[in-house]
Amino acid sequence: MINSMAVIEDGAEISDNVFIDAYTIIRKNVSIGRNTRIEAFCELGSGNSDKLIIPDNSIIRSHSVFYGGSCFGEGLETGHRVTIRENTKAGINLRVGTQSDIQGDCIIGNYNRFHSNVHISKHTLIGSFVWLFPFVVTTNDPHPPSDFLQGVVIKDYVAISTMSVILPGVTIAKNSIVGAHSKVTRDTEEGYLYSGNPAKKTCAAERIRLKDGSRRPAYPWTQHFHTGYPEEITQLWKQG
Amino acid sequence: MINSMAVIEDGAEISDNVFIDAYTIIRKNVSIGRNTRIEAFCELGSGNSDKLIIPDNSIIRSHSVFYGGSCFGEGLETGHRVTIRENTKAGINLRVGTQSDIQGDCIIGNYNRFHSNVHISKHTLIGSFVWLFPFVVTTNDPHPPSDFLQGVVIKDYVAISTMSVILPGVTIAKNSIVGAHSKVTRDTEEGYLYSGNPAKKTCAAERIRLKDGSRRPAYPWTQHFHTGYPEEITQLWKQG
Amino acid sequence: MINSMAVIEDGAEISDNVFIDAYTIIRKNVSIGRNTRIEAFCELGSGNSDKLIIPDNSIIRSHSVFYGGSCFGEGLETGHRVTIRENTKAGINLRVGTQSDIQGDCIIGNYNRFHSNVHISKHTLIGSFVWLFPFVVTTNDPHPPSDFLQGVVIKDYVAISTMSVILPGVTIAKNSIVGAHSKVTRDTEEGYLYSGNPAKKTCAAERIRLKDGSRRPAYPWTQHFHTGYPEEITQLWKQG
Repeated sequence: MINSMAVIEDGAEISDNVFIDAYTIIRKNVSIGRNTRIEAFCELGSGNSDKLIIPDNSIIRSHSVFYGGSCFGEGLETGHRVTIRENTKAGINLRVGTQSDIQGDCIIGNYNRFHSNVHISKHTLIGSFVWLFPFVVTTNDPHPPSDFLQGVVIKDYVAISTMSVILPGVTIAKNSIVGAHSKVTRDTEEGYLYSGNPAKKTCAAERIRLKDGSRRPAYPWTQHFHTGYPEEITQLWKQG
Repeated sequence: MINSMAVIEDGAEISDNVFIDAYTIIRKNVSIGRNTRIEAFCELGSGNSDKLIIPDNSIIRSHSVFYGGSCFGEGLETGHRVTIRENTKAGINLRVGTQSDIQGDCIIGNYNRFHSNVHISKHTLIGSFVWLFPFVVTTNDPHPPSDFLQGVVIKDYVAISTMSVILPGVTIAKNSIVGAHSKVTRDTEEGYLYSGNPAKKTCAAERIRLKDGSRRPAYPWTQHFHTGYPEEITQLWKQG
Repeated sequence: MINSMAVIEDGAEISDNVFIDAYTIIRKNVSIGRNTRIEAFCELGSGNSDKLIIPDNSIIRSHSVFYGGSCFGEGLETGHRVTIRENTKAGINLRVGTQSDIQGDCIIGNYNRFHSNVHISKHTLIGSFVWLFPFVVTTNDPHPPSDFLQGVVIKDYVAISTMSVILPGVTIAKNSIVGAHSKVTRDTEEGYLYSGNPAKKTCAAERIRLKDGSRRPAYPWTQHFHTGYPEEITQLWKQG
């Protein structure tokens, strides 16, 4: 159902079973997949005339802005007031929280979860099953302002806690954990916790215990946290 | 006065002397009290069909989103682009600044002031007369991601300065002060200033002097700051 | 071209060659210069009835809110969801990124660039050719909450990196650089880099080398970075 007060420009492609709420603007360069819901006050396809692909089975919450020239795998879900700029390529089931901003020119894998107010700079590369908590920032200019940019790389299964900044050119290794309010200035080692300003290697992540009384290791988190992932994936995680 | 370009769903309850501006959407599960002003581009009652109570004598500024299932005491005031999610229970005269986000499942007392970009996680408990400055974040997961959450508790008269993060399960005691850009990892002691990353006990708050030339103690702030509170309360503060 | 679904109040002054998109509200106290583009879902002139001057050759991106009582030199450019409050006086070619918030009662020079989520407190004074990166915050209350406010002063050519906070009353001297995730508690010295929490003087900024292989000094940045400035200015910079 397309609300009568939505603006759908000629040329926009809308698949079956799409809901578009009042006061949302869909530009002519947008293609919206099936079973997708676009809430009110959004503008999709702004800034340029390149194709924007909103995939099947997605939810774009209110007041969000997507530029032309990006594509996503199915099951995209956003919070409110999200901004996604041009040339963002993301895999399936990306979740982007309220007021997060993906600056474009970046590649993002599958099943990633970005909480609210996450800021992804241009030239960031993100693997799969990554968690970025509120106000996490990736950067790209080692001596701002300049024309020489070095993106951040974040590997699979990484979790970066709230209000942490990753400096330009840093690689966060697989299964690394970054504590809250940290500034990461160097590459991390796989499976370790880093914390502080500047962040230091604190301990092996597997040494952190769940506080739920079980005393099981909290990391890798795939051993205990499965909410929101398909069963074929969590079965593999359970098998180790 | 309800603008002709606002959308008011059947079932919504609008009291006397309510102003609703253009392009705002009021869902059927919303009840709006008297003498209340809802600015443009808001959506009230989204996300679910539970009752949303917007109280008397309130101002909701533009582009704000309130989910169903929350209630507030009278005199609610928000900035622009505020997000309030389900199951937020707040007392009278809450002020929430521009782009702040209350994630729901939380209890908030009376006369609280949250500046802009404040992020309140689920399971946060906040007393009364609390000040949270821009980009203050409360958290709830001691080993993210996990299913075991521990909320933050913030007691009466606390002031937390800009860009500070409170870690999961921490209690900020009555009259404690947190300096700017701090990470609070442990419970605080009543009436002390904490600052740094990680935050350390710096001094008794009452030892901080006002810089206005008077040399009076800056804390407890109720001894000198009264703007925006009713006289029956500030009279009590003056009496000590 | 003014979209038929924009709201233009009687009294608003719209110059030649102005584009106003759907669902934007222009209050009666607004004057819009020539060759200017206002995107969708904005509200200009809110909060009071003082004059708001939107200058020639400007772009205001979607979901932005400008209060009455501010003025800007020509070539103003904003991102999405910007908030500019009353009594903001800014020079030419100000760029303000997505979700940035200028709280008003401040004076801002020429050719400044504020990235996204920058928060400028009341009583901030900013020179010209200043760079503020995402989530930079200026403050004004040395013992919050209080009635005694001390603004921050930021001089010409300063660059402040992401997630840094400048404490009340601090002056950031000309050509100073502030590293990411820093808390600046004292005045800085001209041409030095400050970094950390609290920020310490790290080195002369001119000792930082460009990582582009040239080994040229990265600062003053005017020696190598010219994108977006008019040639008559960059010619002067090249001459030193």
